[in-house]
Order: sequence, then structure tokens, then C-alpha cells
Amino acid sequence: MKQQLPENTVERLSHYRRVLLNYQFLDHAFIFSHNLARLSKTNPVTVRRDLMLINVSGDVHKGYIISDLIAQISKAIDSDQTEKVAFIGIGDLGKTVYEYFTQFNEKLVVAAAFKFGAVKSVTQDDVPLYNIADLMQVIKNEGITICVVAVPREFANDISQILVNSGVRGILNFSSVPLQLPSHIYVEQYDMIIKLEKIAYFLNRPPKKK
Amino acid sequence: MKQQLPENTVERLSHYRRVLLNYQFLDHAFIFSHNLARLSKTNPVTVRRDLMLINVSGDVHKGYIISDLIAQISKAIDSDQTEKVAFIGIGDLGKTVYEYFTQFNEKLVVAAAFKFGAVKSVTQDDVPLYNIADLMQVIKNEGITICVVAVPREFANDISQILVNSGVRGILNFSSVPLQLPSHIYVEQYDMIIKLEKIAYFLNRPPKKK
Repeated sequence: MKQQLPENTVERLSHYRRVLLNYQFLDHAFIFSHNLARLSKTNPVTVRRDLMLINVSGDVHKGYIISDLIAQISKAIDSDQTEKVAFIGIGDLGKTVYEYFTQFNEKLVVAAAFKFGAVKSVTQDDVPLYNIADLMQVIKNEGITICVVAVPREFANDISQILVNSGVRGILNFSSVPLQLPSHIYVEQYDMIIKLEKIAYFLNRPPKKK
Repeated sequence: MKQQLPENTVERLSHYRRVLLNYQFLDHAFIFSHNLARLSKTNPVTVRRDLMLINVSGDVHKGYIISDLIAQISKAIDSDQTEKVAFIGIGDLGKTVYEYFTQFNEKLVVAAAFKFGAVKSVTQDDVPLYNIADLMQVIKNEGITICVVAVPREFANDISQILVNSGVRGILNFSSVPLQLPSHIYVEQYDMIIKLEKIAYFLNRPPKKK
């Protein structure tokens, strides 16, 4: 059993890996914590603490070996088995995610997309596309465990219930309604309304720089 | 000039208002800070501090008057003028947002949606739908100031640049690439890849409850 990491650390480690994968293309072999911090928009103390939690330490003079760091982060946060992801009502948003997982994270596979009224076909990225009516059957057959739910609010709770009954254990909820689900389901909420109201507020009075 | 509020306070005030608008339907006239905190998944101290920042205080025995609280939050965070919002490549996700603004926030108007290859028409919610090729012209003509950008990563920077040149001042960026924009543009990032990797991590080891 791997050691349990705090939620914010897991998010940052995922972010560091993204940054490092890009940085690696520039033919760097090493990186200092202050550079990784700058590229990840956090501070060096946080970076060093996060990396200590996964038992990685850098060389004082050279910094961290990038390829080792990527491998250690993957070992710490990726699932042992592959998890299958499905998108429900997500539109173009899925494309970037699909490309990234295909290239860099073989433990996450985008296995299906669902749309209201869709005819069974494939998306532009060759992800199988299904009608939402086939949700339960496809989720079960494919063994999908994670779903991104971006359906209108009136359907959000019914659809999540179907997902949970079909074996889904993690949900990224974009529907702006709280989901009533058993406590063993891991739900991550995103509320676009709050973010848009925040942007409107700061349009005319930019926040002070940190 | 209104007083400048911290970014997290603005997000929470937006959230409180959503909660209060729902709560109001239940025929309550008053609410205590601990109830508002529970419904908003925060703590009473934070609620009271946020509301003090907008000069609202409750009655020790009755709590806050809900209608007053909604009015004070709106006064504190809403723009004086109406801001127009557009969705670019967002799919079904825009529907919930559109419904909420139409009902509850007249200072935010969803004025347009854009899609690659779209023929000029209207969405299911009667929002005018345009081809992305018409981006600059429509944004300028309509005076749109806020855009939600959910296009594939290879287009994200070019499209944001067009938006800024057309007068947009706030961007909600879903493209998972950092945008290179002038500092007076208010950008809010959302990175779905990080959230999915986090969900995958916690699927098999639920975090400790706070």
C-alpha cells in the first residue's frame, strides 16, 4: 500500500509532471526547485516539501534529475491498474485531455464519450461515441471507473446515480449542482458560475499581484 | 469606487448567493452563519468574516435576513454595468450557466457561442451561435468582455490573442495551456488533466474526512 498523500500535494505533483514533461523537450537534464516552482506558479519550499513526501531529494549543486523526478511522481500518484475515463456531454473540451493521456499517462484511458441524441460512432479523436441512453450498458461492459459529467442540471443527479450503479467510483462534476452520492464515491466539483462571477468582479479592478 | 475584496472572498460570496437563492425557495426569511457555512461547505468564522468585509452583520438571535444578504452580496460583487459573456467550443456545459444568469444575475448576459465549422444559427437556449471564423467581428459588434475558451491546445493562444485584440478583458481558460497575455487581462485557469489524475489517485484510497 502506497503512502497516502494530501489532496493538494497530489494536484501539485500532477502539475509538476506536466511542467517537467514540457521542460524535458528543451534538452535539460536537471532542474532546481526554484525553477520548477516558478514554472508551476508555486514556491520552492512547497516544491521541496511535496517532493520529500514522495522521498525524492535533489543535489544541492545540480538540482533534481528530471527523468528520475518524472518517474518518481508517476510511481507515487498513478494507479497500479489502468483506469478508464468517459466524458458525458463535454464537447471539444475532451480533446486536450485525450491527447495528453495518450502521450503521457498510459494509466488513464479515455474509453468513451456520451451525448444526448448521439448515433453510435466515433469522435474526431477516434473515441467511441454513444447515446446517453446506453450509459449503463457501456460503462459496465467497458469497466469505466471515472466520468466527467457535464450535463444540464436537471439530469445531473439521475445520471450520477446511474454511473454509480454501473460501477463508476470517481466523478468530475461540471453540472453546478451538488450530487447526492454514497461517501465512497470520490467527487470533484467545478462550478463555472462562481468563476464567471469572479472574473466579472475583477474585470474592472485587477487584484493586487502577489 | 467599491472596496477591493480578496479573490477567495469573491468566490465564496458568489457561492453563498447561490445557496441563499435556493434556500429562499424553502420559505425561510433568516439564516444563521453556521447554517450558511454548512450549506456552502465552509466554516462559520469564514462566513462571518466574509460578510463583515461587505459590511453585513446578523442578529444574534435570528441570524441574517436572507433577502438583505442576497441584495448586499449582489451590491458588493456584481458589476455596475452589464458584462457580455461568450462560450467558445464549450458544448452542453454552457446551458446551466445560461439558465442561472437569465434567472438570477442580470449583470451577466450570455451573448454568443462559437464553434469550429458552425453555421450561423442559435443554440437550444436561443443563444446566437457563430462560426469561430467570425470571432473578432462578433466580439467587437456585441461588445463582449468575458470569454470561456475551451478549444484544443494548439489554438488556445491564437484565439485568446484575437479575443484580447477584440476587446475581451476576462478569460476562463479550459485549454490546459498557459496563455501569454497582457497583464491587464484577468485569466482564470482550469486544468482538467490535473483534476482527473487526482481523482484516479483517490479512487483506491479515499482521503481522510476533514
